[in-house]
Amino acid sequence: MSWTLTAADLPDLARGATLLGTGGGGDPYIGQMLVARVLSERGIGDRGITILDPDDLADDTFVIPTAQMGAPTVMIEKIPAGTEPTLALRTLEAHLGRSADATMPIECGGINSMIPLIVAAETGLPVVDADGMGRAFPELSMETFAVYGVHGSPLALAGERGETVIIDTGDDDRQMEWLARGVTIRLGGVGHIAEYAMSGADVKRTAVPRTLSMALALGRAIRVAREEHRSPFEAIAHTLSTTLYSEVRELFAGKVTDVERRTTEGFAKGRATISALDGTGSGSAGASGGTLEIRFQNENLTAHRDGELVAIVPDLICVTDIESGEPITTEGLRYGQRVRVLGISTPEMMRTPAALAAFGPRAFGLTEEFVPVESARALV
Amino acid sequence: MSWTLTAADLPDLARGATLLGTGGGGDPYIGQMLVARVLSERGIGDRGITILDPDDLADDTFVIPTAQMGAPTVMIEKIPAGTEPTLALRTLEAHLGRSADATMPIECGGINSMIPLIVAAETGLPVVDADGMGRAFPELSMETFAVYGVHGSPLALAGERGETVIIDTGDDDRQMEWLARGVTIRLGGVGHIAEYAMSGADVKRTAVPRTLSMALALGRAIRVAREEHRSPFEAIAHTLSTTLYSEVRELFAGKVTDVERRTTEGFAKGRATISALDGTGSGSAGASGGTLEIRFQNENLTAHRDGELVAIVPDLICVTDIESGEPITTEGLRYGQRVRVLGISTPEMMRTPAALAAFGPRAFGLTEEFVPVESARALV
Repeated sequence: MSWTLTAADLPDLARGATLLGTGGGGDPYIGQMLVARVLSERGIGDRGITILDPDDLADDTFVIPTAQMGAPTVMIEKIPAGTEPTLALRTLEAHLGRSADATMPIECGGINSMIPLIVAAETGLPVVDADGMGRAFPELSMETFAVYGVHGSPLALAGERGETVIIDTGDDDRQMEWLARGVTIRLGGVGHIAEYAMSGADVKRTAVPRTLSMALALGRAIRVAREEHRSPFEAIAHTLSTTLYSEVRELFAGKVTDVERRTTEGFAKGRATISALDGTGSGSAGASGGTLEIRFQNENLTAHRDGELVAIVPDLICVTDIESGEPITTEGLRYGQRVRVLGISTPEMMRTPAALAAFGPRAFGLTEEFVPVESARALV
Repeated sequence: MSWTLTAADLPDLARGATLLGTGGGGDPYIGQMLVARVLSERGIGDRGITILDPDDLADDTFVIPTAQMGAPTVMIEKIPAGTEPTLALRTLEAHLGRSADATMPIECGGINSMIPLIVAAETGLPVVDADGMGRAFPELSMETFAVYGVHGSPLALAGERGETVIIDTGDDDRQMEWLARGVTIRLGGVGHIAEYAMSGADVKRTAVPRTLSMALALGRAIRVAREEHRSPFEAIAHTLSTTLYSEVRELFAGKVTDVERRTTEGFAKGRATISALDGTGSGSAGASGGTLEIRFQNENLTAHRDGELVAIVPDLICVTDIESGEPITTEGLRYGQRVRVLGISTPEMMRTPAALAAFGPRAFGLTEEFVPVESARALV
């Protein structure tokens, strides 16, 4: 069933997409401003953007996903003009000799939940309610699309000065990522892309379904809970209970006591330490003292509680404000913040051996094995 | 007037192209082997390759130049499969929706004198006897084509694993170079390219004419002089006297006493010091003692004799064996070699203000002004 996303939905979507960004994925609030501006310029803020349910797609619908790539630390400083993702789409269309019937996110977490909406607002194309990461990941090859047989090439990349680059590495999505990352670094750290062009049948077979609507529902649930003075964390758990992301665990509550990050090779890498609050201040979860250490590469990769692994990629590790449930990105982490860290299970299609090979622990150079967040030792 | 280049011409062409490479441009002997292999495989070593005089081109002839890019220090270790430059040509043809009538060098010095011959042998296309550098330069934007209004974009780049990349930066050839260099580094240091697609009218207006035949004539003259026990240096001067490169100066003769080079950002950069031989051993030029220092970025950029500038880019600074006149590349420089260094004037179209802006001293970050080699203080 298709539905309409209007300008009024954008703040909730941005909040939900930040949560699904698991610390990375770029800042959706910047994306939100860009979408709002384009909707306003076109006078379609109320009429909105058509969102297509993946089950409704005809098998021969032609879908070209669009996205931004780069280090989120750079994206904050380098606000895109807004026209680059559409230029990337048009460049890929011209290269393939075929026009897109719809666009789609490759990543539902962070700014990439918004980039296809900018394209939709500019072109009038609908957006498919699905993506290829089911969260955010740092590399273009980390896609359920690729895991289940749709490859990213040819990829079109557009820069802020109207540069375009088309990269074709055949079935080698890692080499595509490697070359596109090199171009993005030379463009100053951010590029806009169109890739993983596919049919409607491919979408139904390879995409994580309904992640755009899930992000919107999450953001809305957090806001409404706050307005009604209910727990935003119960609202998150309740919202996810009917989705493919049904297991939610509170991993820790405490205070940020150390953040170490550097932007290197086009990524933001580092670690954050969260320490228990003095006395009983750790909130409803009654944290047992000690510390939680989070390692990240754009997104949060691992959470160790007092040295024990309690969540690991591809499950979601989400840092939020301890009271309001507002999600906090890696760039937003500051000493002294009081935070609550959630672990959320990913869909089964993201936990198969093939999926773990693409975006499980080893794909990030981690030595830990994948352990589902729901089977890690519970905190309470 | 068109002519035919056969397998038997390749050693002379390689020698002449190494001289015009002014220390860089990659090793044409590797290119020579590749051309010979393709000619042999196709059984056309004797029938050869058709070389077109630029004056004979119809105005609407469609020419796509082909080349290799990368650090010569890497090229030596990474011998191309031979099929990449043709893949680059085909990729650009497909992108432009038009087939080439001929290929052409973008650079007549070094291995790029040979790459278009590989393409010609594989495709049956003729090669235009002209280029856009009139020697070798380290960057793709350093082209008379660009100086006189033909731009490099779109550029197609092919890697050894069949990867293709198409880069379009509009009129910004420096940005094209920057992005293509980034891709080449990520491909391991070497890429093959097709760029500066142009008409026959463009060739006649923007290319340095007859540089392929000049390279062949130089290589042949050096060999024949040696066989006939005449001075190869007189043969070089005699050959050039009827070309656009008519001024030849001996800058120094001596022994290599220091070479410092590093491969960085995709270039081989460094300096070499040549010291006078003990006693009277400096050969016919009667070198006045002291030292010659050469700075290079892939190619030789400056020659200072006892601290005084005696030749500077875009004029040619060529290091050769002190007796045989065999040209020596930057990578080939070794401590103790006895060498003779020549300065050769470039054509007037390479010395205009616009040309010097593209590939004169400042384009290399040098502080020295351009001084024509023929007006520098003579050695003897």
